[in-house]
Amino acid sequence: MTSPINTIIEQRISANLFDPTKALSAAQIKELVRLATCAPTAFNFQNWKFIAVQSTEAKERLKAVSYGQQKIVDAAVTFIVCGTLEAHKTLAKALKPSVDAGVLDQAICDSWVAMAAGGHENNPESQRDEAIRSASMGAMTLMLAAQGMGLVTGPMIGFVPADVSREFKLSANDIPAMLVAVGYAAPGNWPQKPRLPVDDVLTIV
Amino acid sequence: MTSPINTIIEQRISANLFDPTKALSAAQIKELVRLATCAPTAFNFQNWKFIAVQSTEAKERLKAVSYGQQKIVDAAVTFIVCGTLEAHKTLAKALKPSVDAGVLDQAICDSWVAMAAGGHENNPESQRDEAIRSASMGAMTLMLAAQGMGLVTGPMIGFVPADVSREFKLSANDIPAMLVAVGYAAPGNWPQKPRLPVDDVLTIV
Repeated sequence: MTSPINTIIEQRISANLFDPTKALSAAQIKELVRLATCAPTAFNFQNWKFIAVQSTEAKERLKAVSYGQQKIVDAAVTFIVCGTLEAHKTLAKALKPSVDAGVLDQAICDSWVAMAAGGHENNPESQRDEAIRSASMGAMTLMLAAQGMGLVTGPMIGFVPADVSREFKLSANDIPAMLVAVGYAAPGNWPQKPRLPVDDVLTIV
Repeated sequence: MTSPINTIIEQRISANLFDPTKALSAAQIKELVRLATCAPTAFNFQNWKFIAVQSTEAKERLKAVSYGQQKIVDAAVTFIVCGTLEAHKTLAKALKPSVDAGVLDQAICDSWVAMAAGGHENNPESQRDEAIRSASMGAMTLMLAAQGMGLVTGPMIGFVPADVSREFKLSANDIPAMLVAVGYAAPGNWPQKPRLPVDDVLTIV
């Protein structure tokens, strides 16, 4: 029994309350990240990293640098979703599976690497935009995949980036873009909050 | 017959080739944006705008500032997905539907507006990150919703932001984060390109 995608999109909530007794297996965590990485990235950069914070010790460290948010310890796992800077430097590696599979030929791969370098070298704003964009699309896909598995998710921007980077030994190129708590709902969560009318945010030209 | 969400995620492609003979109705465009805006945003900012470029005239103008990408004219519609700066200034309006529905009380709404202002005022990097993050999550949700309707999508970062802003009269606060072409597939598109192994991008702690 599967829900149509529009039902999953409509029923997703930003959960604050998680059942602290229920865990996720490593296999479930890997499956969530596998699906998250099906999201698109410019040039197929795949310029993201996912830190799955699951142990009691690591949850406490993350909570301490995230304004004490209780859902980090109650949820089965909280992902630190990072986008990475200087993505043009790792693009050849990111495209290798496509070349190996015969989807892209080496000449296209080389031309993309050159184009990406041209756009990103010496352009910190483009690099950061790309990091935030890729991480956000990956996180969104992860949240919908989780919803489809009967889980709930809680996205968070309430954390101190420099402290998260230090505690979890992120490299200088790894930008923590968002935290996403994932687990089983406890009672009492808000529903999805109402949105502005579509006509307030859409123009057709 | 609906596909499970993981199938939709796995089958989504970044399409380059669209059937230029097939259009989308205004109702279909509105439904795509309604679903896109079910995506979460920090504080429920809803700091996004969607410009649906559908007329022949507007498509030609967008193509001209997007390195001549043909899919912009071939696709039924291309969305300019914008994130907006200074989201804290419009948060009270964005939360009004939640207050009116009784989901949030006015005191919580007021406290969120104060918190958001504290984090975003005089902080252009946070504002820009938030704009890119919200627009990217909205765009990702739109792409999956479209896939669920039997459509294909082509996300693009290949455009000149200042020229797009001028041509489509965006305000200084509207940051075009991504273009998303939407329509019906023509033959010959790439499959979803292979990804790096999950263990390359995931750490469990």
